[in-house]
Formats: sequence, C-alpha cells, structure tokens
Amino acid sequence: MARILVEGDDTLLGGLRDAAQPAFVCTIASSNTGAIEGISIAGASAEMRKYTPPADMEALFYGSARCIPGVAATPDGIPSPVIITMAALGAMALPVFVVDAGSEVSPQTPYFRLGGSPARSVVTGHAVEDAEIIFERGWHLGANLAKLTDYLILGESVPAGTTTALAVMLALGLDAEGRVSSTMIGGAHGLKQAAVDLGFKAAGITKGSLEGAPLRAIAAVGDPMQAAVAGIASAASERIPVMLAGGTQMAAVAAVMDRLGKANMTNVCIGTTRWVLEDPDADIVTLARQAGCPRIYAADLDFGAARFEGMHVYEAGLVKEGVGAGGAAVAALTYGGLDDDELLRRIEAVYEATVLPMIAGS
Amino acid sequence: MARILVEGDDTLLGGLRDAAQPAFVCTIASSNTGAIEGISIAGASAEMRKYTPPADMEALFYGSARCIPGVAATPDGIPSPVIITMAALGAMALPVFVVDAGSEVSPQTPYFRLGGSPARSVVTGHAVEDAEIIFERGWHLGANLAKLTDYLILGESVPAGTTTALAVMLALGLDAEGRVSSTMIGGAHGLKQAAVDLGFKAAGITKGSLEGAPLRAIAAVGDPMQAAVAGIASAASERIPVMLAGGTQMAAVAAVMDRLGKANMTNVCIGTTRWVLEDPDADIVTLARQAGCPRIYAADLDFGAARFEGMHVYEAGLVKEGVGAGGAAVAALTYGGLDDDELLRRIEAVYEATVLPMIAGS
Repeated sequence: MARILVEGDDTLLGGLRDAAQPAFVCTIASSNTGAIEGISIAGASAEMRKYTPPADMEALFYGSARCIPGVAATPDGIPSPVIITMAALGAMALPVFVVDAGSEVSPQTPYFRLGGSPARSVVTGHAVEDAEIIFERGWHLGANLAKLTDYLILGESVPAGTTTALAVMLALGLDAEGRVSSTMIGGAHGLKQAAVDLGFKAAGITKGSLEGAPLRAIAAVGDPMQAAVAGIASAASERIPVMLAGGTQMAAVAAVMDRLGKANMTNVCIGTTRWVLEDPDADIVTLARQAGCPRIYAADLDFGAARFEGMHVYEAGLVKEGVGAGGAAVAALTYGGLDDDELLRRIEAVYEATVLPMIAGS
Repeated sequence: MARILVEGDDTLLGGLRDAAQPAFVCTIASSNTGAIEGISIAGASAEMRKYTPPADMEALFYGSARCIPGVAATPDGIPSPVIITMAALGAMALPVFVVDAGSEVSPQTPYFRLGGSPARSVVTGHAVEDAEIIFERGWHLGANLAKLTDYLILGESVPAGTTTALAVMLALGLDAEGRVSSTMIGGAHGLKQAAVDLGFKAAGITKGSLEGAPLRAIAAVGDPMQAAVAGIASAASERIPVMLAGGTQMAAVAAVMDRLGKANMTNVCIGTTRWVLEDPDADIVTLARQAGCPRIYAADLDFGAARFEGMHVYEAGLVKEGVGAGGAAVAALTYGGLDDDELLRRIEAVYEATVLPMIAGS
C-alpha cells in the first residue's frame, strides 16, 4: 500500500503518477542566519553547517558526500533527510539537477549557477543581493527545463531556511507567526521571531508592508533559494505541474510566486512528509492556503518500526523534511509505483550503506 | 530546399529530423592560449576576447549580449557566428543550456558549473587543472540530460580553441598538422604549430605519446571545454545520438571520446558549416575519420546573396563556425523543417536586429 495524505484537490498528485518523465531539481543556499546560536541544527556544528547543502547534493550524485564523510547530520548524529531523497530517487532513476543559488561551499557535482551569493543574516534587513537577477535567471532555467520534462519536483537544502521563510511570509502579510516547522523539537519559535523582528526593524518594514513586492521581501529578509525556486517554478508552471518539495520553506516560496503574479498557481502543489503536515508545533496547511497554494501531498512515512534504531528518532519530531525528501517520496509512491514497505526498505538500505559506517567510525 | 552536406552515413541526420525533443547545450571556456599575438581574432581585441564566450551565451538567451553591447565581433567587426545559432534556435524554440567549463567571465545567464577554471596557455605544457574532474562531472550531467531529451546538440565557444584542438589531436597521435580550421584566412598554421611545439616541449610529450591517456593530453595542452564536452557526450551517447556542433575543435573532442573508450561512437556525429567542411586551409574530414567519428553533417549555408553586405564576408573564409552554429543550422534544416531560404531570412533578421545597431553606433 502507498499512503499519501492529500490536503486540497488531488489533480496534481494523479498527474505525477501518470507523468512521462519527471525531473528532480534541488536548490541549495547558505544564509548567515544560521550563525544565530540555536536557530539551526542542520549540521554537526555551526562550522560544519556550511557543508550541509553541498554534502546533501554530493550524496544524491555519488551515494555519499565528498566534502565530508558519509552524509550531513545534526549534532546528535541524526542523518540528513537526504537519505529519504536518495532512496526515493534511486528507485526511479529520475534525472537530478542541482542549483547553487548561493552556497558558501559549492558541491562537487555538476550544478547550475544563477549568480547568487550566500545570504547575510536576516537580522541585517538586507539579506540577499540580486534577488531580482536570481529570479530572472531561475525563470529562464525553469522555462528551458519545462520543455524537456512534464513534471518538476523542486527541493531545497538551506540551513536556517525556516527563519527566512517566516520572515518573508510575514513581510508579505501572511499570519505566519508560530507556524513554521523546525528541525528542532518545539520549533524555536521565540528565537526565530526575535531574529525576524530585528530584521524588520533594520529593513524598516512591517508585517505585510512588502505584500506587493515579494522580491524586495526576499532581498530584505529572505534567502537566495527562495528567489531561485520562485523563478524556476513560476516559469515552469506555465507549461507543466510543479511540486514544491519541502516543508514550510516552500510555503514561503509559494507565497512569493502567488504575490508576484507570474505563475499559474493551479499548476503548483507542495509535496512534503507527514512529519511536517502533522507537525504539532507548526501549521503548513494554513500557511499554504494563505500562500495561494492550497494543495499539499504528504508521504505518510513511518520510521517507528524501521530496522535501525537511529531512524526511529524521526518519529520524535526532529528532522522532518529537507532535500525534497517528502516530495521525492511522494513521487516514488506514485510515479515510481513503490508501496510504503518497499520505500521503507530502500531507506533502510541507504541508512545501512551511508549512516552505519559513520556511526561505526565515530 | 534544405541542403545538407553528408560525409559518412546519414543515420544520425535522419534521427535528428525525427527527434521528439532535442536540446542544445553550449560549453564555454577561456584559454590563455588566446593571449599569443595573432592566434585568435574571436573578439575585437585581446582584452575583449574574454567577453566573447559569455557574450555569445547572453545573446542566445536575451537576443543580445549583456556584458558588451550587441554581439561579439572580430577586430574588423565581423559578427560572431552566434547570429546563425540565434536564428536557428529561434526557429525551433529548443531548450538551451550553458556549461561554463572555465570562462574568465561568467555569463549573465543560468549556467552549469563543473568545477573548471580558465586554461593556462598551451605553451606552458600544463594547461588545464582538473581535467578528470571536469570530465566526470560532465559525464553525470550528460547522463541526466540524456534522460530528458532524445538528441543532444553540443556547441562551444572557446577563443583560440583550434590551437588546443591541434595540440590534443597531435598528443593523441592524429595526423593533425595543418588540418585545423581558423577564424583567419590561411589558418595561421605556423603560429599554432609553434605554440603547440612549445607546449609539447614543456610537457615532455611527443606526437602520439598520450594516445592512451586523453585526459592527460587535455591537462597538458588542451582546454576545459574539451573535457566537459567529452564527458557530457560520452555519457549521453550511451542512450541517445549526440551531435558535436563545431568545426575541427569537435574533431579533437571526438578523438578524446574515442580514445577514452567510454562512448558509443556510433551515436556520435559532427555538425558544422560548409565553410568548415570545404575549408581549403584545413581538413576536418581526415581529422574526424582519425578521431573515430567519420560522420559529418554540414549546413550548406551561403551568405553570398545575403541582404546585408556585412554577411558576405563569411564567404571570404573568415569566421566559419562557433557557438554550435553549423549544428544548430543542421537542426533547423531537419528537425525544424526550415528550408535554406527561410533560414537565411532568419539569420538576416538577427543580423538586422543585433549587428546593424552596433555598426550604426560605432
């Protein structure tokens, strides 16, 4: 059985099942927002965090990272959700493309550049250089990719990305307070909100004051991934369905696309995990609805009975999403024809091949 | 009527006509070989030459360059062959991807990076850093692109690229002396050979001494484009036909692929212009045969009766090829269904829109 939780209409889910040739595109970026103590655990330490996005991409291409051993992990050793993406993509042999929208460390893979650079911290109020340029080049990339594929799945790997997501959604006027997900239990909402408040003050903006200028919102308090994915997805949505594969970070991207008015939002959905959809400390359903993308498909992953104890922790509410894990899993369960058990077995196999040797070696 | 000159079997030409969705990929790079006085006129001056590859890519995306006004041109004002590529691609709305394998100036477009850097001069004997890495990442890119398209057309824009082509073919043991084409009348063969001789001495190699190590030949006396395109094309040729779109530079790429032994050479052809195929100062037919790619399709372009006098100069034997002009023209005349006159009208229209304003403004 393949269980997928559907919020809103399921037309874009059926479209994925019947697609002739989907493609997976993962956009990475760094943001100095991650330097705020306690705001992100996407990486074993603050110093290691800059390797998380490139390590995730290398793992997708080569089966394990090259810039670090194994795969990225939290300080507690919980592996990056890339293990889910690897398992899901491996089952489908989907074409994979990387977009480096501004990563501090570039991946040792082929990757697209759109001209972006790592973001300054959200607290500066001028976080992203060249948001308009990144969007425009993302647009051209999306238009070209849409000629070659009939379904785009767009993932991301951006440490501290939920904080910049919160900031952008608030700048656009969404009631996003306390609603973004986190890798951490509880959600670190106070810390994130405090950082956003500082950024708003520095930028001289207030909630909703940039409703009509989403790229300015990104420039002030966002990250380069948001501009890149909004551009790619907006152009592609004119021709084909697009799945924004991620958690509440992708609600922010959807909101940018919706407010810019250059996308066909009926062709846009969010693909994620049950852990995000049912996150008691967040509310992606409300965010997506306010973002003009009331269509969420979540893979009903359950690691409670996984063969490796290290995987059970996903059920505890940490690491919930990332690297397009949920969307890739949804694709594996529809387009790929896998059932829940087969997908779990594949994720266990990836865990065994990439994470166990790290534990043994530590 | 659409006239295409066929050398060897025409199976890959028919395959292009019937392709469902071809894609065009152009790889750019810089080489300090271009700093040798008199070796290249691909750019209005030595200083301007570093802008030629990015300018060509920007023109493909936006209708004119962004890093310079209009389009790249020779010191005499002969426009880059990109005007042919623009006209041909414009007729087909082909998806276009740029690969920056090591350009001194990056294009203001989306582009792939494989990790390369601009090449040192061929005379140094250690021209290219990381040829193996560029090839490997090119391979991964080609494998992914081949899942999305059923025909790849691979162009290049590398000033001084025929000198590095000559050098690599000689290192592989081809009888390439005096056989590479040139933007210049006469071919500047003596100058090129002298530079290659210096490079061979510096690298401690002789003709044919790197026959079994083509990536070492590139590392010693080649350019990064060769490694990138060889990687992309080798991987793609396992699944789909690949057209190396260019003149004698592409014979060098074919030779690298053939000697590496990782490509399906029956799926590889060269697409070029009549000006290259019939170049009295060069011999692409012999080179391609020795390179293991005895299959050349040349667009029978004739600018002798073109509406603009500035185009007649192509018939004088200057600027013969580049930016995949010939291969793109072959695609327009087959897959695109254009006849010779329609293609010429379209090239004239591009000339009128992009080159005439430059002349008027100078």
